[in-house]
Amino acid sequence: MKVELDINPESAAEELTRFIASQVDRARAKGGVLGLSGGLDSAVVAALAVRALGSHRVWPFLLPYRTSSTRSVADARLVAAHLGLSPVELDITPQIDAYFEAIGEQTPLRVGNKAARERMSILYDQAKARGGLVLGTGNRTERLLGYCTLWGDMACDLAPIGGLYKRQVRQLASFLAVPEPILGKAPTADLWPGQTDEQELGLSYEKADVLLHLLVDRRLPQREVAALGYDPEVVRKVRRLLRTSAYKRRLPPAPPPLVSGG
Amino acid sequence: MKVELDINPESAAEELTRFIASQVDRARAKGGVLGLSGGLDSAVVAALAVRALGSHRVWPFLLPYRTSSTRSVADARLVAAHLGLSPVELDITPQIDAYFEAIGEQTPLRVGNKAARERMSILYDQAKARGGLVLGTGNRTERLLGYCTLWGDMACDLAPIGGLYKRQVRQLASFLAVPEPILGKAPTADLWPGQTDEQELGLSYEKADVLLHLLVDRRLPQREVAALGYDPEVVRKVRRLLRTSAYKRRLPPAPPPLVSGG
Repeated sequence: MKVELDINPESAAEELTRFIASQVDRARAKGGVLGLSGGLDSAVVAALAVRALGSHRVWPFLLPYRTSSTRSVADARLVAAHLGLSPVELDITPQIDAYFEAIGEQTPLRVGNKAARERMSILYDQAKARGGLVLGTGNRTERLLGYCTLWGDMACDLAPIGGLYKRQVRQLASFLAVPEPILGKAPTADLWPGQTDEQELGLSYEKADVLLHLLVDRRLPQREVAALGYDPEVVRKVRRLLRTSAYKRRLPPAPPPLVSGG
Repeated sequence: MKVELDINPESAAEELTRFIASQVDRARAKGGVLGLSGGLDSAVVAALAVRALGSHRVWPFLLPYRTSSTRSVADARLVAAHLGLSPVELDITPQIDAYFEAIGEQTPLRVGNKAARERMSILYDQAKARGGLVLGTGNRTERLLGYCTLWGDMACDLAPIGGLYKRQVRQLASFLAVPEPILGKAPTADLWPGQTDEQELGLSYEKADVLLHLLVDRRLPQREVAALGYDPEVVRKVRRLLRTSAYKRRLPPAPPPLVSGG
């Protein structure tokens, strides 16, 4: 079976640019707010947003925590400068540390999730103050794997690249001329020094994209995917991640209303 | 047209108790985390959770900000004590103020939204640490009016009373023997001293419940609702709140995936 995930980056860029413009227009919003992490995803969304809205209507934020790498911050600044944007920089360390000091315990993962939610909270506050929408920077691969923080980086007013696998985000990034240092580096959630997504997931994005496509878009059973020559253990792992992260991709369940309609 | 929103509180309590138990069970969670505000909604959810899970598996949090009224905190303590629960109390003032001092501007509404999202963030951190789920405390009336913070008090793992109008929450509260001081007081988001929801909404919950029921559950056009004898201005207002808050009740839009399925 031929697996074809490649996109036409030019038409994809056009489609996603129109998507951003029409969503902002429909909400009668004045512009878009987004967080720049120094990574590929937020660089692509920033570039698309500038195409859709013009640089004067794109408000980027750099929201590092004290363990964020200096490389991430430098790359985020580079992305902004390259697009002619002046980001607001705000260190979120005081509020994150205030909480963990008060409760007297922490782990890198808990700090990472708290930081992701703090960034969401700041982006929403800033969007409200400016009459803008929050542009999400999550991609389809991490969304399907659940490699993201519920109500954190997943929370936004629109998700321009939410339908793109990581491979497709990379293709789009090349087309949009995202600066070389960002194109070339390993994806990282920047949870601790040297951390990379692929190392933590125990799975390359290249493989994850293909397996997700076969399991989700083509709806193939696990066994059939393995029969195509993929490691059954890896297929099982992706299947498990899909299942255990399903709750992150739906609204909270509630019992049905206790009134009769119609 | 007869409008009948009254519930049978006994069977409603049973149904919602089963809902909580089955959701927690299905997620193989150890219990439920919730925030106690001192108001009716969280008191009802706490009482239902204790019925569903037992008091040893319900972990309530009091997360006041410096402008929270002492009455709210006292009432939240009363609810917990009444149910045999020992809540964790944590003042969120340091982290909220750290942010607003850094940016050098604030309004009561912005502080209120930031606080709602901070409480969500803490409840999720605590739920993760304990292997529990976050129990939402929002009701159907505020959800339909949009009188709630997106990714703040609306964000949860399950919404036990998300299908109940405020009137129905009150009936359930009486049945569940929620302490008198909480039953009797005016609903408030506690945004500033003396604030009440109904004053801020410019609408009584009693009227809001009925109009929402006619517009949403019975799908009556605005004009027909007004023809039943309701003030056309008020009907228009509820209709407008329904429309402008719709974005809070769905997942963020994303363009469709750029691959072909099947």
